[in-house]
Amino acid sequence: MPETQNQLLKVAIDAMGGDKAPSVPVEAAVQAAKSGLAEVFIVGDSDLVQKELAKHEIGDLPVHFVPSEGKIEDNEPPALALRQKPTASILVATNLVKNKTADAVISMGSTGGTMAAAVVLLGTIKGIERPAIGGPIVGSAPNQTILDLGSNLDCKPSQLLGFGVLGSVFSKLLVGVKNPKLGLLSVGSEEGKGNVQSKEASMLFKKSGLNFIGNIEGNDLVTGKADVVICDGFVGNVVLKLVEGLGKGFATQLSELLKGKIPDDHLNSLMADLHKKNNVVDAGGGGPVFGVNGVSIIGHGNASAGTIERAVGLAKMCVDTHLIEEMNKEVSMVMSTVDD
Amino acid sequence: MPETQNQLLKVAIDAMGGDKAPSVPVEAAVQAAKSGLAEVFIVGDSDLVQKELAKHEIGDLPVHFVPSEGKIEDNEPPALALRQKPTASILVATNLVKNKTADAVISMGSTGGTMAAAVVLLGTIKGIERPAIGGPIVGSAPNQTILDLGSNLDCKPSQLLGFGVLGSVFSKLLVGVKNPKLGLLSVGSEEGKGNVQSKEASMLFKKSGLNFIGNIEGNDLVTGKADVVICDGFVGNVVLKLVEGLGKGFATQLSELLKGKIPDDHLNSLMADLHKKNNVVDAGGGGPVFGVNGVSIIGHGNASAGTIERAVGLAKMCVDTHLIEEMNKEVSMVMSTVDD
Repeated sequence: MPETQNQLLKVAIDAMGGDKAPSVPVEAAVQAAKSGLAEVFIVGDSDLVQKELAKHEIGDLPVHFVPSEGKIEDNEPPALALRQKPTASILVATNLVKNKTADAVISMGSTGGTMAAAVVLLGTIKGIERPAIGGPIVGSAPNQTILDLGSNLDCKPSQLLGFGVLGSVFSKLLVGVKNPKLGLLSVGSEEGKGNVQSKEASMLFKKSGLNFIGNIEGNDLVTGKADVVICDGFVGNVVLKLVEGLGKGFATQLSELLKGKIPDDHLNSLMADLHKKNNVVDAGGGGPVFGVNGVSIIGHGNASAGTIERAVGLAKMCVDTHLIEEMNKEVSMVMSTVDD
Repeated sequence: MPETQNQLLKVAIDAMGGDKAPSVPVEAAVQAAKSGLAEVFIVGDSDLVQKELAKHEIGDLPVHFVPSEGKIEDNEPPALALRQKPTASILVATNLVKNKTADAVISMGSTGGTMAAAVVLLGTIKGIERPAIGGPIVGSAPNQTILDLGSNLDCKPSQLLGFGVLGSVFSKLLVGVKNPKLGLLSVGSEEGKGNVQSKEASMLFKKSGLNFIGNIEGNDLVTGKADVVICDGFVGNVVLKLVEGLGKGFATQLSELLKGKIPDDHLNSLMADLHKKNNVVDAGGGGPVFGVNGVSIIGHGNASAGTIERAVGLAKMCVDTHLIEEMNKEVSMVMSTVDD
């Protein structure tokens, strides 16, 4: 058993990140400490965070406050913002991981800012050029990990291979799939189908030693044919937003078709069931920044305190399963099969 | 008014194309002649087609038989198949358009074969390198034309611009949208977002004179924000199959959730309503091969006689509205705004 399993996870929480910051992140942090899940380092603007902390009974809970100044906004170009705001919450929080004060950092703030801070301070895993984001997106396949979902819009085939390794290790250690089946999202399952990028990537996957099942198509995302689905961030982001949009669209259609035909409370409970079944993006609390050399978890901006607590649980699993060490090992092994 | 509106459309029908060939195409052809919609040229293997024709009352209906030998199968590489089977039904049928015996050709057979025959015999519109396929795919936006859906997997930005012109003319003349809004499928609505291809294409669209509304995202396909959506065939095909798959997946979910909770006949009628609302791909009977210099209509392989008749109606609209002439005019005008 990994040693850390009996130790309290040390987690840095970006109190300035998310739509309901700092109140919701602070509440979640205190709750995580209270439930014995973690020792928390709450990072944020002093006056704002102290005011929130005053609302809770801290006593001798393992809750620390670490001051920062300012935050990276969603609409800021991340790299520039990091240079202009060296004391921003996400930088201070990520630095706690770098200097080993914390085992992991969690933010519900700017995705770009969180990723950029992780790259700058923790670095990328050797063999990975740029990090990716990923996770499940289709309700009918909640254990399917799709990456990249929007960070890398122009990918070389070898980058896709790297994502395949990261997704594969994640699926094994965090989702619990024994020998994850890897599929490359393309336009036909036959060998040799695809665009230039996917055809070249397919060749790399074939000789990678990974459990590559070949090309999969758009409809295969719904049945969960592959445990790990690889695509570039352009395609992944279109797919992510289309799935979200279609889910909402179907719900509206259904609601209109059934209105007045079944009792309102039945309709409401049906819609709630459908929402629960299909809202897999938030269910895990967030996802790791794939490919950086440390545990950095990104969540949705509108996350509730409960969602952030689940993110703490995810961070704990990443640490307990030695996710980053395994990713380093596997990437190094698989990337050695690539010639260029 | 176009002259042809008072004339009978002359249409070549590939009797060998589709899952239920030749019986269904022959039935549809005879029906189209009977209803006064068209003068039909049924193209196919002599013995097979004559046997089908014998089942119908032809009398003095405007029905002609044109013999061919063999057909292009779905799994054949189209270009090679055309060379190996110069008398295949789709080649003979498309040639009737080339030599002006027919105004349009319709096939429910191999999409690749139909496109390749159109390119070889009718040529592409000047300024268009390779043809595209397109049409509506999302039930909540039945008047939205998306292209390319799978013919061009690696596209130069100027090709996307060409698709924009073709889609725009189609939307105006065939769908009836006055000043079609054009959107480029990408990963963010902000200017400057996208991959290299879409960023360059966006620049071309901006100075094209087309009604370009900028980038749209995956979820915008559901609300029909743009009347014409442009993407390369790789992304388009992933999107097309994902929409189909999610529709089926959602129907299954719903059926399971409602089973036993509402009477079976209500459930069945609800599922039928949902299917009808979302099955927009087949509703039009098929779509034209976008970008070739003549009217060639492709339909689904499992098309019914009714669907094929709708395809005849679509062919008539293409001819009556002078679709091809307009496309030639607009492409020539817009492509002159491109430097390279």
